[in-house]
Amino acid sequence: MDLDVQKLYQKVHNLSKKAELLGSIDQLLSWDRETHQPISANDIRSQQIEELTTRIHKERTSPGFAKALSSLINLETGTILHTSLKAPQVAALKLWRKNYLKSKKLPSSFVAKFANAVSNATNVWSIAKQQNDFAKFAPFLQQIVDLSKKKTDILGYSDHPYDALIDDYEPGTTTAMLTPLFADLKSDLKSLLQELSTKAMDVTPFPKGNFPISLQKDFSYELLGAMGFPKGSFSLDEAEHPFCCGIHPTDIRMTTKIYPNDIISNIFSVLHEGGHGLYHMNLPEKEFGSPICESASHGMDESQSRFWETIIGRSLPFWKHFLPKLKMVFPEQLSSLTLPDFYKMINQVEPSLIRIHSDEVTYSLHIIVRFEIEKGLIEGSIKVKDLPEIWKVKMKEYVGIVPPTDTEGCLQDIHWSAGLLGYFPTYTLGNLYSAQIFGAFEKKFPNWEDLVAKGDLLFIKDFLHKNIHQYGREFAPSELIVKITGQPLQAAPYISYLRKKFSQIYQ
Amino acid sequence: MDLDVQKLYQKVHNLSKKAELLGSIDQLLSWDRETHQPISANDIRSQQIEELTTRIHKERTSPGFAKALSSLINLETGTILHTSLKAPQVAALKLWRKNYLKSKKLPSSFVAKFANAVSNATNVWSIAKQQNDFAKFAPFLQQIVDLSKKKTDILGYSDHPYDALIDDYEPGTTTAMLTPLFADLKSDLKSLLQELSTKAMDVTPFPKGNFPISLQKDFSYELLGAMGFPKGSFSLDEAEHPFCCGIHPTDIRMTTKIYPNDIISNIFSVLHEGGHGLYHMNLPEKEFGSPICESASHGMDESQSRFWETIIGRSLPFWKHFLPKLKMVFPEQLSSLTLPDFYKMINQVEPSLIRIHSDEVTYSLHIIVRFEIEKGLIEGSIKVKDLPEIWKVKMKEYVGIVPPTDTEGCLQDIHWSAGLLGYFPTYTLGNLYSAQIFGAFEKKFPNWEDLVAKGDLLFIKDFLHKNIHQYGREFAPSELIVKITGQPLQAAPYISYLRKKFSQIYQ
Repeated sequence: MDLDVQKLYQKVHNLSKKAELLGSIDQLLSWDRETHQPISANDIRSQQIEELTTRIHKERTSPGFAKALSSLINLETGTILHTSLKAPQVAALKLWRKNYLKSKKLPSSFVAKFANAVSNATNVWSIAKQQNDFAKFAPFLQQIVDLSKKKTDILGYSDHPYDALIDDYEPGTTTAMLTPLFADLKSDLKSLLQELSTKAMDVTPFPKGNFPISLQKDFSYELLGAMGFPKGSFSLDEAEHPFCCGIHPTDIRMTTKIYPNDIISNIFSVLHEGGHGLYHMNLPEKEFGSPICESASHGMDESQSRFWETIIGRSLPFWKHFLPKLKMVFPEQLSSLTLPDFYKMINQVEPSLIRIHSDEVTYSLHIIVRFEIEKGLIEGSIKVKDLPEIWKVKMKEYVGIVPPTDTEGCLQDIHWSAGLLGYFPTYTLGNLYSAQIFGAFEKKFPNWEDLVAKGDLLFIKDFLHKNIHQYGREFAPSELIVKITGQPLQAAPYISYLRKKFSQIYQ
Repeated sequence: MDLDVQKLYQKVHNLSKKAELLGSIDQLLSWDRETHQPISANDIRSQQIEELTTRIHKERTSPGFAKALSSLINLETGTILHTSLKAPQVAALKLWRKNYLKSKKLPSSFVAKFANAVSNATNVWSIAKQQNDFAKFAPFLQQIVDLSKKKTDILGYSDHPYDALIDDYEPGTTTAMLTPLFADLKSDLKSLLQELSTKAMDVTPFPKGNFPISLQKDFSYELLGAMGFPKGSFSLDEAEHPFCCGIHPTDIRMTTKIYPNDIISNIFSVLHEGGHGLYHMNLPEKEFGSPICESASHGMDESQSRFWETIIGRSLPFWKHFLPKLKMVFPEQLSSLTLPDFYKMINQVEPSLIRIHSDEVTYSLHIIVRFEIEKGLIEGSIKVKDLPEIWKVKMKEYVGIVPPTDTEGCLQDIHWSAGLLGYFPTYTLGNLYSAQIFGAFEKKFPNWEDLVAKGDLLFIKDFLHKNIHQYGREFAPSELIVKITGQPLQAAPYISYLRKKFSQIYQ
């Protein structure tokens, strides 16, 4: 090992860590805003976040950092200047360079303007959604679209402007890759949905009753414990829209939404956010401060949450073990509930209007509607004013139903008002990754159903840790999926997982 | 108004605000550590706090800030350079100068060394307290005492080294002022305690039972609402040691400790922290970022919490209104509880070993024990190794009982291990301020008992806001008490308040 080179590397890492410490604090501020912050503090919280993000941006683009970085990697060409650097260090340097060049391109005046537009648009969006008034939202969305286009010009792209936006969330993925992948998926999902709709399935309605929040929380802790969270290593709070915030591998914050008359929402939120949480808990802690201590991408992150929520959490063996435990928590309310009924209940396929409530089969169709629209908005083939109509047409064609209002249609999600164009595809990529990873998992553990039915989940955590979590961002998601499964990402494993599962359920 | 001078002032305020925004974030980190942070994150939290405090210290002592400040106030002499500045601005400039000079004096190497000693000492203290092992703690306490002495040398003092320490918490107060004040108080409290001990009082033991935490919380929110907290303007969480954190006037975080088999702890914690909370909520918000948007001192802050917790919260009219409400929350558990019994129950005077559980009469005797000891440690008249013995002697002499263990004696409080020498007196100053302010309050509202008995508390909030809260730190506590009551701080009003109240209770 070349000690001088290691010293230079340490210097870059230390400088970066100072900014990332502020970044981790910024995450706490965002977590707090959604969980415990009094509403009255909205304004001071925005000021605090702006102060931090300005400082972080300044340090990530500082001449001192650039100088330290350029002692190890040529900032113009990306050439690594020392052969003695280890593979994860090379990966870190390339990511640092990429992030540096990207941050340098975006002038802080543009960043501030974008943040301001987002702040206005999200405020108006929530009112417009309440009032089913798309016209009110349209000019604010137009501004977000215009600024997003501007952003693609600033950042640059070689093929499609939408590529510049996806890259923030799914590095290396392009419109040219997504378009055929999603086209295949759309046609396969539509025919599966068609087939299932011809088969009737009797589903017992879920038992009504009072499920005290404190008992629901107890069961949540039991689930998280079984997934492999040690006591004292995470927090679980309530939030309007459940999310997971990995501040640091030792500081995992998960949230859930608990309704006193429904246990389903909380259970699957906990399994979903628990999947994200395990990923972030198992990232390489000693790399904290470098881009390696991050998940590989939003899609890969989502693959972990969906793996736990759907593939494991909505499986029969899982509930073979956990339904008796759930019934012990709610003995009266659930006395008549049987395992076959519960399994059908949580796996019912039914076209619905709202993405976040949709089942495994229709979910990705909702995403494809959004992908096609935002791609159109960015390339200019779709106008903002036509959005409600286009939404209805696509929903009719792909999912089979038409929203009676824009509130249940193109106004349902916060993403566009929040400036997150390019984000939606990662949800579906997550599903695809998860199913392809599940193939490798099944090969390695042909008896996984027996183990899970006994309540053993730790081998799953270990499998995911060994194959995905421990690498953090060392590999691009496209490399990682090949490393795990031997194949590039495809739609086929997902489709065959769905076909197998739902043809059994729907016989 | 001189616009150029106002521009210069605004520049100082803006620079200061950038550091204070980080300061407010630092407060959130501390609040979170005591409420929601997973234990596993202790180390990263320390790193985050160190990163922030280093940056804050750097900005508060930066040449740029000093230059801006010196355009308005002579940093050497303290002379204000422009006559057009308004009174609160002059006060702010004097505080900025004082804080700047103080921060400049303390080298960051010393600050880091002190922080490190505190970190070690608090860890060892909690073990030593558990194991009743003072000898284990002694060398760590010795280091804190040595560093505190060093700090008094660095900061300087004109009379007694302890003055340099008090100044952090009670600006302007000196050992020479406290010594006779506390001597008077000690003799008066001892004789009052002696008199009361000759009178027997039948106290019904508090009803045992199960008081569900969620119902206790509901009652807490009712109390805070009645005190004048608007919905959505504060948070109330559980913590091992209740505290209030005023991050910003719009972001008030209170904490309480709730036991499922006892309602008393939670109720008086909520009233106490609510008193702090109202103060911080009503500080002059537009001054945020300047030292004016802070409470006048720790003692004045404590006067607000004790005003609500004891003077109002342990009064008969208060419970005339709220006991029926409490009984509505716990109808079965409290069915046989009468108002006279409850009033006696919460006002029983009894020598006890633990400061935080002590009654209004003995409380300050506990503080005086600590004040005399820490003063002795700093001036060198008391040695660390003799502390357990001296503690016992003083407890016997002042409170009348001797702790059988050091756990219940000199190891009970975290303060010394936390490096907070000079802090304890502010608790008693708070009690003295509160009673003297109560005199002015009674004059203004001779019918206060009738109003409170009807459940009206908002006039109390308004009185405290008008006389104290709105000024923030514009006036030193010694000026503020004269402004409110026409008199400098004295022990007499506190003693006469106690005499009147407890001679009625103990007839």
